[in-house]
Amino acid sequence: MSRDSYVEQLDRLTGTLAAMSRHAAGSIRGASTALFDLDRDAGERVVRDDALLNGLRDRVNAGVPLLLVRHQPVASDLRLVMCAMRIAADLERMGDLAVHIAKVALMRHPVTVIPAEARDAVWALADPAARIADKTSVVLSTRDPLEAIQLGLDDDEVDAAQARLLGMLVSGWRHGIESAIDLALIGRYYERYADHAVNVARQVVYLVTGDVRL
Amino acid sequence: MSRDSYVEQLDRLTGTLAAMSRHAAGSIRGASTALFDLDRDAGERVVRDDALLNGLRDRVNAGVPLLLVRHQPVASDLRLVMCAMRIAADLERMGDLAVHIAKVALMRHPVTVIPAEARDAVWALADPAARIADKTSVVLSTRDPLEAIQLGLDDDEVDAAQARLLGMLVSGWRHGIESAIDLALIGRYYERYADHAVNVARQVVYLVTGDVRL
Repeated sequence: MSRDSYVEQLDRLTGTLAAMSRHAAGSIRGASTALFDLDRDAGERVVRDDALLNGLRDRVNAGVPLLLVRHQPVASDLRLVMCAMRIAADLERMGDLAVHIAKVALMRHPVTVIPAEARDAVWALADPAARIADKTSVVLSTRDPLEAIQLGLDDDEVDAAQARLLGMLVSGWRHGIESAIDLALIGRYYERYADHAVNVARQVVYLVTGDVRL
Repeated sequence: MSRDSYVEQLDRLTGTLAAMSRHAAGSIRGASTALFDLDRDAGERVVRDDALLNGLRDRVNAGVPLLLVRHQPVASDLRLVMCAMRIAADLERMGDLAVHIAKVALMRHPVTVIPAEARDAVWALADPAARIADKTSVVLSTRDPLEAIQLGLDDDEVDAAQARLLGMLVSGWRHGIESAIDLALIGRYYERYADHAVNVARQVVYLVTGDVRL
């Protein structure tokens, strides 16, 4: 194995993680489109394309042992390779959570899951979740610790929005229990999605760069 | 570094994973005790002791790079070391989910979260979740693929129980929306807990042993 091929393999690994990250970001936007715009096609695409994300995850898992055995990377390369499987697991899970959201929208279609008075409260989850996913994609390429710190603040925003949504559901909700459960679970899915995205960014910054400022 | 010290380090790594797995199993039982027996102490212990599980996870994450760099393990040792961080992440997450359940019980204490007619439905989640955690501990030491297959069946039982619980909540539930949301989220926590446990077992059997029968 030449040195070039080592660099190529590393590039392929980071490229696959970046592709997973973009996919996961696209999935949450698609799920939100299905949810807010009653866009059935968008929802079905999220569900169908999840297999692609799983395939990318499998590629990461297959590539890591080869890289370790053939090239015995050290320092930040080693940390990247080591973290790659966990990062891929987080990104794959983000895709699953987007699928969960899309499936709730599809299950109720053409009825909306979100009564008018809850739209703002759910959007307060959907919007930062998508933003966090975009920033995570950026962190994967820049490995910028400041960006990762910013992500922690965005994540606090998601947690607060989830608490507000739950508060709304338990104070005189007029749309019945099924609707309340749908929204409570959707809130949970967005919150978990954002959490996994922040995890990815932290792994990149903490573990890969060895930066412990966060 | 002597060969002995390599074996010792590997043993310490698997020992830490086994300790994490026992801890996660104890946490879900403690959470269920808090939930079903209104046992406040049990619930508080689950919350408090979660820091120990996080500490064990940190120990795994610190040990893996040292092992890789110093000893360059191969074959099943390498696969174990590679998977250790993901396995530790799953086990740590199981602890978090037990904490979520314990916290719901503590938040409502001394009022029960589970009205009498839902006890069987929630127990149908709590019981197999604890069983799966025990089996996962066994798989971590035996790496027995048959045990891991069995775990898949237990996990199906959990999924079916969660669906039944949700069904009960949306058909004439008489205890209000807050109670329904509590139980829907608790159902989700048990389901995710079991899923992570099965993930751990699959990683051990698939990835560590290289067995692809599952």
